This record gives sequence, structure tokens and C-alpha cells, in this order.
Amino acid sequence: MSTTPISTIKKRQEKLSQLLKQHGFDAVAINPSPNLIYLTDMHFHLSERPVVCIFTADHPPVLILPELEAAKTRDLGFDLQTFTYSEDVSKWQDSFSSAVRAIDLQTGSIGVDDRGLRMLELRLLQSALPNSTFDDAESLFADLRMRKDDIEEIAIQKAVNMAQEAMSLLLKEIEVGMTEKEIASRLVLHSFKLGSGTELPFMPIVASGPNSANPHATPTDRKLQHGDMLVIDWGVNVDGYLSDLTRTFAIGEPTPQQIEIYDTVHQANQAAISVVKPGITAGEVDKAARDVIEKAGFGEYFTHRTGHGLGMQTHEPPYMRMGNDVILEPGMVFTIEPGIYIPNKDGVRIEDDVIVTENGIHSFSDMTRELIVIGK
Amino acid sequence: MSTTPISTIKKRQEKLSQLLKQHGFDAVAINPSPNLIYLTDMHFHLSERPVVCIFTADHPPVLILPELEAAKTRDLGFDLQTFTYSEDVSKWQDSFSSAVRAIDLQTGSIGVDDRGLRMLELRLLQSALPNSTFDDAESLFADLRMRKDDIEEIAIQKAVNMAQEAMSLLLKEIEVGMTEKEIASRLVLHSFKLGSGTELPFMPIVASGPNSANPHATPTDRKLQHGDMLVIDWGVNVDGYLSDLTRTFAIGEPTPQQIEIYDTVHQANQAAISVVKPGITAGEVDKAARDVIEKAGFGEYFTHRTGHGLGMQTHEPPYMRMGNDVILEPGMVFTIEPGIYIPNKDGVRIEDDVIVTENGIHSFSDMTRELIVIGK
Repeated sequence: MSTTPISTIKKRQEKLSQLLKQHGFDAVAINPSPNLIYLTDMHFHLSERPVVCIFTADHPPVLILPELEAAKTRDLGFDLQTFTYSEDVSKWQDSFSSAVRAIDLQTGSIGVDDRGLRMLELRLLQSALPNSTFDDAESLFADLRMRKDDIEEIAIQKAVNMAQEAMSLLLKEIEVGMTEKEIASRLVLHSFKLGSGTELPFMPIVASGPNSANPHATPTDRKLQHGDMLVIDWGVNVDGYLSDLTRTFAIGEPTPQQIEIYDTVHQANQAAISVVKPGITAGEVDKAARDVIEKAGFGEYFTHRTGHGLGMQTHEPPYMRMGNDVILEPGMVFTIEPGIYIPNKDGVRIEDDVIVTENGIHSFSDMTRELIVIGK
Repeated sequence: MSTTPISTIKKRQEKLSQLLKQHGFDAVAINPSPNLIYLTDMHFHLSERPVVCIFTADHPPVLILPELEAAKTRDLGFDLQTFTYSEDVSKWQDSFSSAVRAIDLQTGSIGVDDRGLRMLELRLLQSALPNSTFDDAESLFADLRMRKDDIEEIAIQKAVNMAQEAMSLLLKEIEVGMTEKEIASRLVLHSFKLGSGTELPFMPIVASGPNSANPHATPTDRKLQHGDMLVIDWGVNVDGYLSDLTRTFAIGEPTPQQIEIYDTVHQANQAAISVVKPGITAGEVDKAARDVIEKAGFGEYFTHRTGHGLGMQTHEPPYMRMGNDVILEPGMVFTIEPGIYIPNKDGVRIEDDVIVTENGIHSFSDMTRELIVIGK
């Protein structure tokens, strides 16, 4: 961490200043989150002690933080005014009030990340700025971060390569009788041995047999058995950037229906990949995958969107969701992950990580999408 | 996960019903968090899709969640009314409004966890309940979860044992020239090999030389060298329960000042441990440690509280903080972790995990607190 060149940090902060004006915000208030790392390269835990950084177009940012974290604000390479508080909770409000006074903020529209800011920070901000409104700045943050720069693209490619390497090691070990939990643990171990950052994007989903029909299953003590479909959804972390892949395997020879489902999902994945290029909408990517699955008669079993943006967060804009009219641009990174889930029976998902290029698409992931049969 | 007996879950929900009345709340609204796991044994990711469970004293709880997570609500063993929404974001509000109608909630004081609930959930709840207030229920949740039951105590003891075992493996490997990051990676690897849950309480802090003076340092590429103090703060996860320990080591023979600091922190740790028993306040525990450090002339360098509650969260009530008048009761679990941090020079922290017993205290951690010298 702390590897982003200061010139890049400054460029990002300048872009934010422009976006503040474009989106009509007087300021944005950010708590510990990818947005904060992206803009400052400062890493804080999200804890019971509030940390908030406020950016305006005309002043250097101000940061409210606990005294004991103050060392993290040294040698940043950009201007930052800090307001620290001690362990005395009753003094927190003073720090917030002093911070907003220092940048002449009194009233206006303060942009916040609805998916990150908590009541804890909101109440302190509201008391410091009683005449302001706090409005969701999702689209501002999306405009700021959706198009990845070279540094980010390289990190994501590394994260995908590492995840694929971990899977190829795991595939040599999986056998009938192993539990989902054991498989998940081995996959995590391989990831760390290969050098993944310790904050994984999520705990691997290892879902076998009827569990595979639950798109967000948690690994259980269920043992692999012949006749299972096995869905594994996993990723690693390289320099704070994430991968998020899924492959589905058959345990023993698959049934005709399992093959039919698999092939349909595979075709849907390919259909979505083949339409991606600058200028089309995120909704069209969803439609390309969904059309294939609906045509095959499994439409009601494809219960989620086709994909989501990926970068410092596992889920971030743009979302490949029906009707989403966000227009794809070069540098946007997202997953393509159609699935079919027959309740209490079988699930299949095939997920790739891709980037929009000047002319079309590059898939970071290149592991085979053909059905691999384990334990014949 | 999913290992808590249903009788325990029901007992916890009944206790919540009583606490709602005692604390004057008409309901509590909980998003994915330890509170939700504690009360329902349901595990959801905190994501861009809102999940909220609302508990009242007189109705079974209601849960608003995405359709694709619905499988997690099967076979729970307790009554739960669910309101699912599809991938169409514009329908989220309907699900929230239907849910509150189903339990006749119209107005009143809704308790929330300020450190967990986000703007995302707040806005949906506010629109569904325009005549309600949303008030911090920290003390209700503390009353609910501060006194650990036997299942929890056993899990925490296991988590402490496993963390200590990981450290004893690491200690055989640490040598001069290793980077902080490398040491952190090895510690994480040992933790996973020993069976830690993949969601670690936090990334280990491995802070050497001047970095050790930053209580919340992030591991860097700095290499261990003679003359360093080395602070390692780490923990593991067993069945969702956490450990959180710190030991400080000397790299090569320590200087007289390093020894003085170390001994002072060691005495402060012992002083705090020796006062813990039912009936004293959390503030008195802080005072016991702080008095030792102030008397030795290092008061200004002990910049944080003496400890924090520990369980499903790394930081939770009760907080061992100056002036905190929470009275200790049997079953409360917390850390004792005084420290001294001389800026740009040396830091020392010694952290144990303890539980209040009927007569006094039991320290889950029993690794030596004497100064270990590495690489003599």
C-alpha cells in the first residue's frame, strides 16, 4: 500500500474539484473507504472512532481523526489540514465543527457515499452543518473512479492472474468427500501463499449440490458427492485491487440437464462478452446474456444482474443491470457473470472480469470456460 | 458458522424484546452486522443491496432482502416474515414500506446502530417511516451482547489459543532483514493453516523501529534492523469470534530507555489486570494502567484508552476509557493494552484478552509478557 505516485493523487483531487462543480455539490464528506484511499492514499480502519475527510473545490481538504492515528497524515505530499480528537468522546463534535469552520463551509449540499457513510459520521456532520443537506453522491464517485487508469488496470490484471493460479493449484486437490469449507480454506491458503493482500474481496463461495442453487451461499460442512455441480466464486487482492471470478464444475459425469444448463450459461457469458464495446449501455450487456437464458427457457432462474463494476471494491459502478443506461467507455472494468439456479437442485455461474478497450473488450480472465469434470 | 443452537437464538430474541421496552424503543432496525448474526444466525454481506431486519416487541421480525439471497431464510427455526426485492432498484422502497406495514409500525423511536447503519438503509427506512425518529441504540445492543454466554466464551478462548500458536510459529522465523509486510504475511498464513476463519479481525499490525511509535501502523517494506522495537498486534477468527493480542519484541539488545519503556508498559498491563473484578468501573481499569505510566513520566505518550470490548467485533463495548462509568459484570470480555509511543523512535504495547469472572478475572492469553529479544 501507499504506492500511488503523488502526481496521480493530485490529478485525482483536481478531477474531484471539477466534478464537485459539475455535480452541484459544495463539498463531499468521506469516511474510511476506497474513495478516501483513491483520493489520498490514506488507509484507516472503519471503526467506532469517526474519521472524515471533507473536500471542497477551493480549499485543501480537512481531515477529522483520532489523535492516535495522526502519524498517518505525515509526509503525504499534498496539503491537508487535520483536526484530531482525544479519547474523550464529548470532544468529537468540537473537532468536526472546527474543521468545517476552517474551510468556510456553512451551508449547501454535501455529497456523501450512501453505501459507506454511517449514522455515526452523519450525526456529527449534521450538528456541525445544521443548514446543509447530505445527498447521495454515487454518480460523482462513479464519474471519479469508473474509468481505471494504467496503474489500476495493471493491478487488476495481476489480481486476476493470481486468482487463476490459486484455482489451478486447488483443482489438483479437490476430490469427492471434501467439504465445502475445506475447499474454501485451501483456496484461501493458496491465495495467500501466492501473495494476495490479506484483505480478500470476500470469502470464497464454495457451493455444491443443492447449495449451488444459492447464488450467495456460504461454505458449509456438506461433502462433495457424485452428481453435484460445484460453484466456486473467488478473488484475491493485489495492491488493494480485486479480482472476482466464478467457475462451475461437475463432480462425476454430469446429467443431460446439467449439461444443458451449463451450456446455456456459457453461451450467455459469451454473448455478453461479444457485445461489449464503447458506446453501448450497461443494460445492453445484461440483455445480451439474459436473452440467451430466456430463449433457452431458464429466464426465471437467472435471478441477478449480469455483472458489476470491479476495482477497489468488489461491487462498484457500472452495474450491468437491465435498463441501466450508463454508456460504456474505455477503462471501465466489470464482471460478466450470468447464472442459472434451479432451486434445491443445481446452480451454474461463469464469471469473468473484463475491461472496455478503445475498440471492444479485453477479458482479464482466460481460464477455460468449458465444463471441467472432477472425479470421473 | 450457522452453529448457534436455535434455543440460544430464541433466548437472545426474547432478551431483545425485553430490552426494547426497557430502553423505550418501538423497534430496532439492523443491517448486516454482528447484531444481526447474534440475533438470527443469518450471514449477509454488507453490500450495495440493502438488507434490513426489523424487530419489535410484539411481532415476529421482518426482513427486507434481495431475492437472490432468499435461500438464506429457509429452515431458520424461528418466525420471520420476508420481503424480497428484485434487481430493479426502483422497487426497493416498496419492500421497505410493505415490511413496516406488516408489523403495524407507523411512528415511534426506532433504535439503530450508529456504527453500522448507513445512509443507504436510513433513507429507505425514513421514507417508509416518515413520522419516526432513528436513534442510536448503542446501549441497548451493549446490554444485549456485553455479557458473553458459554458458547461465546469458548469460541473466544479458542481464538486466543490459535493466535498464540500462530505467534509461536512466527517467532521461529523472524530475523533481521525481513520486512514488516513479509512478517505480516507469514503470520496470516500461520493463522489460516491453524484454521482461522477467513475473515480476520484486522490485518496484523507489524511495526518496527520508528513505525512502532504509530499505534495503528500498516505494515511497510521497512526491514527489521538491530536496535528496533517490534510491535505485533494480531488476531484470528474462530466461529465468528475474535482474538486481539499485542506483543512487543526487541531486535538485538535493547537500550536502557527501551527497557524502561517496556517495563513501564508491562507494569501498567499488570496493574490493570490486577484491579479487574465485578463492581468496578471500566474507567477504573483505564486509571490503573494510566497511573503507572504517568508516574513513570510517560503519560503524554500513552495516547489511547487502555482497552475495548471484544467478541464478534474487534472493538465493541465496554470500553476501558477514562471516566467510563460502565460497571464490570461477570462475562464481559475486553482487551487490556496499555502502550507508550515516543514519536519517531520507539513504541511498546502489551495487549491481553480477558473476561470478568464471578470473583475477578481470567486472562484468555497466557503468552509471556517478558521482553523477548530476537536476533541477539
